[in-house]
Amino acid sequence: MSLLTVGSVALDSIETPFGISERTIGGSGTYISLSASYFTKNVNVVAVIGNDFPEKGMTTFKEHGVNTEGIQVKENEKSFFWHGKYHHDMNSRDTLVTELNVLGDFDPVIPDSYQDCEYLMLGNLTPKVQQTVIERLNKRPKLIVMDTMNFWMEPQFIDDLKTTMKMVDVISINDEEARQLSGEYSLVKAAKKIMEMGPKFLIIKKGEHGALLFHEKQIFFTPALPLEDVFDPTGAGDTFAGGFIGYLASTGDISFDNMKRAIVYGSAMASFCVGKFGTDGLIDLDSEAVASRVREFVDLVQFEIAMV
Amino acid sequence: MSLLTVGSVALDSIETPFGISERTIGGSGTYISLSASYFTKNVNVVAVIGNDFPEKGMTTFKEHGVNTEGIQVKENEKSFFWHGKYHHDMNSRDTLVTELNVLGDFDPVIPDSYQDCEYLMLGNLTPKVQQTVIERLNKRPKLIVMDTMNFWMEPQFIDDLKTTMKMVDVISINDEEARQLSGEYSLVKAAKKIMEMGPKFLIIKKGEHGALLFHEKQIFFTPALPLEDVFDPTGAGDTFAGGFIGYLASTGDISFDNMKRAIVYGSAMASFCVGKFGTDGLIDLDSEAVASRVREFVDLVQFEIAMV
Repeated sequence: MSLLTVGSVALDSIETPFGISERTIGGSGTYISLSASYFTKNVNVVAVIGNDFPEKGMTTFKEHGVNTEGIQVKENEKSFFWHGKYHHDMNSRDTLVTELNVLGDFDPVIPDSYQDCEYLMLGNLTPKVQQTVIERLNKRPKLIVMDTMNFWMEPQFIDDLKTTMKMVDVISINDEEARQLSGEYSLVKAAKKIMEMGPKFLIIKKGEHGALLFHEKQIFFTPALPLEDVFDPTGAGDTFAGGFIGYLASTGDISFDNMKRAIVYGSAMASFCVGKFGTDGLIDLDSEAVASRVREFVDLVQFEIAMV
Repeated sequence: MSLLTVGSVALDSIETPFGISERTIGGSGTYISLSASYFTKNVNVVAVIGNDFPEKGMTTFKEHGVNTEGIQVKENEKSFFWHGKYHHDMNSRDTLVTELNVLGDFDPVIPDSYQDCEYLMLGNLTPKVQQTVIERLNKRPKLIVMDTMNFWMEPQFIDDLKTTMKMVDVISINDEEARQLSGEYSLVKAAKKIMEMGPKFLIIKKGEHGALLFHEKQIFFTPALPLEDVFDPTGAGDTFAGGFIGYLASTGDISFDNMKRAIVYGSAMASFCVGKFGTDGLIDLDSEAVASRVREFVDLVQFEIAMV
C-alpha cells in the first residue's frame, strides 16, 4: 500500500570522530523515504529544496523507486542546511549551523497522485506544517505517524504540537522528549500521559539503548543492535521511522503484533544507517541484507522459557 | 545443586528522592543470596559481620533458607557500612560514607559443609579475597561467576583483578567498567578484549537499559523491565547476579541457551529489588510472583517474524 512522507530534504555537514562529510544529502524526508523504499515501492515524498540540492540526490531517490513529484524546487533559493559535530561517545552532538532557507516558509503541496496514500509519515517539521499536510488530504489515511522534537515543545509551539498530536495515531519521540512533554521521569508514567494527549501509540526512541512501543497497557521493547563501530548516528531515528512505516505499509496490517515486527525492521534499518556516513548505509541494500540483519535481532533477544 | 556465594553482608544507609533508610541490611552477599533463594534452597554464604549486625538480618537469611554457617561474627567490631545518596534521576549516586570495618582484613573461611558446592558466585570484594575463596575450595566448582567494580581496575589492584579473571567462567560488570577495563568504547569490541583476559562469558550490566551476555560470537540482550516507580536501585546488580546463578544452579545447565533464561530471571529479580527500599523487595515473594514477572519480560520482548 502506498506511503506518503513529508519531511526535510536537505544538505548536512557532519563531523564525527571518524571523519567529516560536507554538504551531503540528508534530512528527515530523505532518510525516511530511502529506508521505507526497502519495503514498499510506492513511497511518495512531499518536501521543498533549493536549486543547490545536488542532482545526485534526486537520482538516489529515483534509483530507490521513490516518487519525487511532491518535491518543490525553489529556484534561486537554498536547501535547508544543518552542520553538526558529534562528541567522542556519539551520544551527544553540537549543532554548529542551522539554516532554514526554503524550509522557512514551506507550504506543502500534495500532488493529486499522492491523494490515495493510506500511510502517512510526518517527519520532524513545524507542527503547523504537519497539520496542514493532514488537512490537505482528501481522505484520512489508515495510519498517521508523526515524529517531532523538543524544539516544538517550547511554549511558543506547544499548543500547535498538541493540536497536531490529536490528529495522529502514532507519535515518535526520544526519551528526553517524552520526559519533557509529560513532566514525568518514569517512561511508563510519561507514556500514559502522552497517550492521553491523543496518539493511541507511542514510540520512545532511546538511541543506542533501543526503542519502546506503548499502546494501552502493552509495552514492547527492542534494543539497538550492538555494533563494533558506529560511524555516524545522523538520521538513525528517521531511518527507524522509515523502516517502521515502510514495513506496516508493505503488510497492510496495523495491529500491535505487526507494529512489534515493524519496530524490529525499523531498528534493523537504523543499524545500517549508523554504520556509514550520512545516507551511505541506506544505499545498495537488498532484501537478503535486511532479512539477515533482522535475524541478528531474533538471535539477540529471543529466548525460550516454558511458562506454567 | 548447591550454590556458594561470597560477598559483603553489611549495613547501608540509603537516601533517595523518595525517602531515607538508615542502617538497613545490605551488601552484595545479602542481595545475591536472598535473590538466589527463590531458585534453590541450597544457598551457602561466606561473609564477615560485626556484632552490630541486627539479629533481624540473620533471621531474614534463615527464613529464606540461606545457610549462614560461613558468616563469621567478629565480636567488638563493626560491620561494613555504606551510606549513599541517589540523585533525582536514580542513575547516579554519591557515596557519602564507606567504612570497611570487618571487611578490611576479611579472611574467608569455607565451612566443610560448603565444599561440595558446584556453583560459586563471587560478589564484589577485593580480587585477592575472591581468589582466596577459589583456592580454598578442594574441587573447582562447575561454574564460577565473579562480579567486580571500577575500584579494582585502578593501577594498584589491576594485576590482582586480571589474575582472578583468569580463574573464573563468567564476569559481570557494568558498561562503564567494561569500557574502562578494555579501553574500548564499543561494547562489542570491549567484550572481545575482556573475554580474551580469561572469562568465557561476559555480562555487561547497563542498569535501567538492561544487560548483555557475550560468549564467543554470540550476544544476548534483555532490557530492564520498564517500571512506573523505581524507589531504590541499591543492590539491583547483585540481585540480578543472584537470580542468574540461582537459576543456573537450580537447573544444573550452563549452556548459553540456559544462561539466556538465567539473564531473564536475574532481570526479573532486579525489577523486584528496585521497587522497594533496600532488601524489602526481595522478601515474601513466591514462585508465582517470579513467574508472573518473567511473563512480563516475555511480553515485552518477544515477537514473531517468519524468516525465510
